[in-house]
Amino acid sequence: MQREPITQLELARAGTLSSAMQTVAERENLLPETILQEVAAGRMVIPANTVHLAGRLEPMCIGIAAKCKVNANIGNSAVTSDEEGELDKLHTAVHFGADTVMDLSTGRDIDRIRAAIIAASPVPIGTVPIYQMLEELGGDIEEMKPQHFLDMVEHQAKQGVDYMTVHCGVMLEHLNLTMNRVTGIVSRGGSLIAKWMMAHRKQNPLYTHFDDLCEIMRQYDVTWSLGDGLRPGSIADASDDAQFAELDVLGELTRRGQELGTQVMVEGPGHIPIDQIEMNVKKQIDICQGAPFYVLGPLVTDIAPGYDHMTSCIGAAMAGWHGAAMLCYVTPKEHLGLPEKEDVKQGMIAYKIAAHAADVARHRTGAQDRDDALSKARFEFDWNEQFRLALDPETARRYHDETLPQDTFKSANFCSMCGPKYCSMKITQDIRDMAGRDELVEIKPAETTH
Amino acid sequence: MQREPITQLELARAGTLSSAMQTVAERENLLPETILQEVAAGRMVIPANTVHLAGRLEPMCIGIAAKCKVNANIGNSAVTSDEEGELDKLHTAVHFGADTVMDLSTGRDIDRIRAAIIAASPVPIGTVPIYQMLEELGGDIEEMKPQHFLDMVEHQAKQGVDYMTVHCGVMLEHLNLTMNRVTGIVSRGGSLIAKWMMAHRKQNPLYTHFDDLCEIMRQYDVTWSLGDGLRPGSIADASDDAQFAELDVLGELTRRGQELGTQVMVEGPGHIPIDQIEMNVKKQIDICQGAPFYVLGPLVTDIAPGYDHMTSCIGAAMAGWHGAAMLCYVTPKEHLGLPEKEDVKQGMIAYKIAAHAADVARHRTGAQDRDDALSKARFEFDWNEQFRLALDPETARRYHDETLPQDTFKSANFCSMCGPKYCSMKITQDIRDMAGRDELVEIKPAETTH
Repeated sequence: MQREPITQLELARAGTLSSAMQTVAERENLLPETILQEVAAGRMVIPANTVHLAGRLEPMCIGIAAKCKVNANIGNSAVTSDEEGELDKLHTAVHFGADTVMDLSTGRDIDRIRAAIIAASPVPIGTVPIYQMLEELGGDIEEMKPQHFLDMVEHQAKQGVDYMTVHCGVMLEHLNLTMNRVTGIVSRGGSLIAKWMMAHRKQNPLYTHFDDLCEIMRQYDVTWSLGDGLRPGSIADASDDAQFAELDVLGELTRRGQELGTQVMVEGPGHIPIDQIEMNVKKQIDICQGAPFYVLGPLVTDIAPGYDHMTSCIGAAMAGWHGAAMLCYVTPKEHLGLPEKEDVKQGMIAYKIAAHAADVARHRTGAQDRDDALSKARFEFDWNEQFRLALDPETARRYHDETLPQDTFKSANFCSMCGPKYCSMKITQDIRDMAGRDELVEIKPAETTH
Repeated sequence: MQREPITQLELARAGTLSSAMQTVAERENLLPETILQEVAAGRMVIPANTVHLAGRLEPMCIGIAAKCKVNANIGNSAVTSDEEGELDKLHTAVHFGADTVMDLSTGRDIDRIRAAIIAASPVPIGTVPIYQMLEELGGDIEEMKPQHFLDMVEHQAKQGVDYMTVHCGVMLEHLNLTMNRVTGIVSRGGSLIAKWMMAHRKQNPLYTHFDDLCEIMRQYDVTWSLGDGLRPGSIADASDDAQFAELDVLGELTRRGQELGTQVMVEGPGHIPIDQIEMNVKKQIDICQGAPFYVLGPLVTDIAPGYDHMTSCIGAAMAGWHGAAMLCYVTPKEHLGLPEKEDVKQGMIAYKIAAHAADVARHRTGAQDRDDALSKARFEFDWNEQFRLALDPETARRYHDETLPQDTFKSANFCSMCGPKYCSMKITQDIRDMAGRDELVEIKPAETTH
């Protein structure tokens, strides 16, 4: 029986160009037909809950044909909690270019905070529903019945959540594969499901109830973000049997979810050494048939807590280059504490750099225009234009001002790094003045001694 | 006529294991024979001026067989100048793990500052002799005669400078190749030489007097750092004809320098998109027959002034993975102003991350030990050990203290990121407690419904 199309995937398969697809085509500078094809093939998702779409959401897409995206995680924890603070983080993330935002709140007032975030957000909002469900169970995961989880997904879908991380792929028979790991299970949701399975000696209920979940999510066009509950939490655990056993299940669920009409993206690691990144991305693309890969970092070393936005933006840039469609940022507070507003900013900058570098490396249309415009302004000593084009104009200007604060230096042919006599760009211009181009082409040495 | 060996290269070729080579073998955990072979083959350099070696220098090596190294640039400019400040930067750089330091001073008191730096430094010191020569000429490069440069190299060699950047490879006939560039010539030394060549319509005197320079440098075992005067200053100019025309000359000079008994490394770009990095490194290794490649970044995008330590640590990590032997750090102040002490620290951290990630990716012996030890401490909630093993213990501890300052939380089974209920590592330990390993291996689901 043919059902009325609801989700962007169903619409695309029916050949219907939705207004969301049209918006996305314009934002990406891609043909509407391309969007239609990519969404229909499951290689692109448009996370747009029908409730949020009727509100402030400005539709965007995630997929290998489009620009590489960045997600920012916000949300409180039991230790730190404050609605206004979370809205401030949302604003900061969007200001610095977050394409989506996940509310990972696990503390007090989850419902109220999420409603405020969705109401305020022009970008898709993602959640991990098991967190709020656990709060409502009083914190004991063993008490969970499948219906608790189904109800929570429906509740959040009604609120307008655009995509949800659900750890459907962690199987009971995978758990022994984690026993020799250095860092065990590091996904919060994954570890909760594992604990439930151990307590009940039963299969993952989010796996066994996958079709029921699809039915709920389809009604609101909530996009799946298939969680990687067994992602490595250290480079020692990278690319191990547990990780890839789960990935095989995620491949199966990707197909099943798409068959049932829901949009699907797939989450990935985590902590991966540089030499394993390409293999990881290619493997996901193969197993999940091109469904958008949404990676967390990966961190390429474990030795720099306090700087994991840096350790991971190396891995993220490489993952994006090899085909990851969205990069989940990591902040300087990773492994140490809950990120605050300044951490959100630092994480965003690092990941905009990574995503942009990936776009340039993949030769996405127009990706290099901003680089070229900024380099031209740099060569022309147009400092104000250089600041304007910078990812963080305020910081660039402040650094320049530290040694040369006067306005007159905003058009000076040098900066304090080299000073006037050693500015190579100034000297290059002198050279160009010394010889017109036609003459220069002819220049050969009058004598060459060696 | 066989000359008495002076340089590490000559000693290695003669089969003599110098005490510097022995020290280096111990520091790298490599066999002395490996060091001997690599140095003799020109694939490894030990920058150790005989004057500095008699002083505070602790010998180190640079080469693909050894761990990836990091250089920190310090030095004043005409705009900012202060001896004490430069010594403070030296100390900061070495504290955070700089393997070599370049004094790029171009302002006042160059001689005094350099003498103080060499006297204080346990790591090799590099310079760009053309800067001081230009100061002594009163700033007019056109006045330079080859003897001025030879004299300056000898002067600095006598002071104990361990390696020198000399822009011998920029040829008069290359200049027309830079005319369509977005950012022209961005090497300070390269642009000065280009200007001299244009003014006199003569070939690069540092090229024509290369053998004379070798003779001076050999006497003190000063290592060549063959400068890349035509390196790209924007990703638009990356991998262009000018860059590679110069690289061919550097390949020729590498062989010539080695024939004349001097140790040689080769400098590289600069600004290179991610997809061109491997090609650039492989090309240098091929053309320069494995002489150590010493790269500046490269930056993988131009859009983030204020964060170029990040844009470039992505490129640096990848370059190191593909075989670059030393990474020249870039600080947050790049393109904007002269780096101060805090910038030196930030640049160092970013580049220690890059170099270490490269070591891990190349599977260098023991490279991953620190990652594994830190991950183990993380899983065991041994916060103090985690901080101790971190690249920047103070910052890691400070971030943790921001939300959980009390001493008791230094052994708590969670942090403020997730709080006690959602700590996946704590839950993993619960799971391991719930089932002994032997039992877990047997676990299969009692029922699987789908």
